[in-house]
Amino acid sequence: MSSPLSEAEIIERYLRPLGGARADVKLGIGDDAALLELAAGEELVLTTDALVEGVHFLPGAPARSLGYRALAVNLSDLAAMGAQPSWALLSLIMPTAQELWLSEFCAGFAGLARLHSVALVGGNLSRGPLSITLQLAGHVPSGQALRRDGARPGDELYVSGSLGDAAAGRELSAQGPALEPPSAETAYLRERFEYPSPRVELGQALSGLASACIDVSDGLEVDAARLIEASHCAGVIELEQLPLSGPLRHRCPERAESLALAGGEDYELCFAAPAARAADIVATARRLGERVTRIGALRGGAGLELRAAGAPRAATVASFDHFAR
Amino acid sequence: MSSPLSEAEIIERYLRPLGGARADVKLGIGDDAALLELAAGEELVLTTDALVEGVHFLPGAPARSLGYRALAVNLSDLAAMGAQPSWALLSLIMPTAQELWLSEFCAGFAGLARLHSVALVGGNLSRGPLSITLQLAGHVPSGQALRRDGARPGDELYVSGSLGDAAAGRELSAQGPALEPPSAETAYLRERFEYPSPRVELGQALSGLASACIDVSDGLEVDAARLIEASHCAGVIELEQLPLSGPLRHRCPERAESLALAGGEDYELCFAAPAARAADIVATARRLGERVTRIGALRGGAGLELRAAGAPRAATVASFDHFAR
Repeated sequence: MSSPLSEAEIIERYLRPLGGARADVKLGIGDDAALLELAAGEELVLTTDALVEGVHFLPGAPARSLGYRALAVNLSDLAAMGAQPSWALLSLIMPTAQELWLSEFCAGFAGLARLHSVALVGGNLSRGPLSITLQLAGHVPSGQALRRDGARPGDELYVSGSLGDAAAGRELSAQGPALEPPSAETAYLRERFEYPSPRVELGQALSGLASACIDVSDGLEVDAARLIEASHCAGVIELEQLPLSGPLRHRCPERAESLALAGGEDYELCFAAPAARAADIVATARRLGERVTRIGALRGGAGLELRAAGAPRAATVASFDHFAR
Repeated sequence: MSSPLSEAEIIERYLRPLGGARADVKLGIGDDAALLELAAGEELVLTTDALVEGVHFLPGAPARSLGYRALAVNLSDLAAMGAQPSWALLSLIMPTAQELWLSEFCAGFAGLARLHSVALVGGNLSRGPLSITLQLAGHVPSGQALRRDGARPGDELYVSGSLGDAAAGRELSAQGPALEPPSAETAYLRERFEYPSPRVELGQALSGLASACIDVSDGLEVDAARLIEASHCAGVIELEQLPLSGPLRHRCPERAESLALAGGEDYELCFAAPAARAADIVATARRLGERVTRIGALRGGAGLELRAAGAPRAATVASFDHFAR
């Protein structure tokens, strides 16, 4: 059994060494607030997202995945702005302080933080029902951020990576550790849920190419509709074009499309770009080793239409709402 | 009975109009992240603090006070850095979305936000056990921030306002609404707990005067010891000098001193300054209408000593620790 730790021990042993080192951190963990230097000509980009036990993850979910995902979901928000991440604040509410849990949580966080040069510059520890709130700051050259509201009629609609894997992986993850060695397909789908890849470099590269961008967290149908609405356009998604992975098609042949449209937690980028930019977008994705798929187009009007085999198909899902009636 | 609200309704009706308006907010609530402009020659200052039901407040605590305090405790952190607050992100986890609770919470937050020109630029809503995490960003002229570690032997030690009122008020607040009209003293003490005054202007004015500063959140004895330790000094606090309000002395004559030393949640500033600055500090406090009291001095060595009637008195309290064994 691991023993409980004091607050000061948690900070010194786990949190202080957690993030990457950055020269623009003038004062990090240990004072009343952090002091940070933003380069001239850059705008600050701020986001926050929380993982709550019983809502975003089940009791007993692997701590390493939670540490990773707490950062990944916020990185995905910055990716959708075309921003470069820099500084994080972690607010951790937990019922007890167990070394094993903390070391796993921190291992998951630290690997991703170093990959993207994110420094942990502050935070807060409280006892209480488990929840993890991360605030992430980044920067973008002034005026260059990708927004939701810049798409125009005639633009094409794209999505990165593949969709629906995370939702299928979430179901597998909820079953707990596998009793026998998982198949490669099962392992792939679980990995896509537990360790999603925020498209940070792709988002930055799309600045200047894409006209609008959003990250797919609640499901493509909901998030694409948000982009289209913010841009005062109508949009069409061709369902045959949805990027579905082999493991998803094979494991969930009946449900692959609905998971891709509405499963959520993909943390892919959905973006629009003028048709004239298509070759640049393909070349950019190839250079970064990222998959990008054209899934539809925008036009004048309002609303998102789904089409299959050239014919309209009714939208099937409602937006996820934490407080739905 | 008020009816539950959808997430989108909460955002539109309550959160979007919540903060102050600021010209440096290029993009606020409604995209994947906020876009903000930091002036040249300024450093960014970031902090976060959480209020957790059952830990920082009791079930049924007045929502207006919670909205106010969530911002106030973070403003106090920025005050201790000498920073000017600017942008907030609110992460609200709550079991249900009740209009009455939300409108009270927002009223408490909004009044203080407008007073200090804080814009709410983003956030996150989740269903779960009630907790409120606020991240606050501010700015300070580069190199001018007040830190904990700048005090030197020979400096004098000060505290703003009065101490112990909040701890006494917390006990009164825990008793719930008064059955009969509260006395002026009771009302004063409750107010000091439920609506503390972060010393934002004082903190900024102390930049260039004070050598080190910390906000008193866990109690003077603990927080002064932190400042002294960070500055590699020893320190003495003269207990006769502690600023105790009339209501505290009258309501809690036996416990006033211990509440002032260890009650916590005062959100006053404890700071050090060279003796040559004493007149400037008095004049600054007077100009701002703030009370500032010299309570001791720093010297070479290590550790905090309490003295009463010229004789050493043992320290009586341990640091508050969320995860103490």
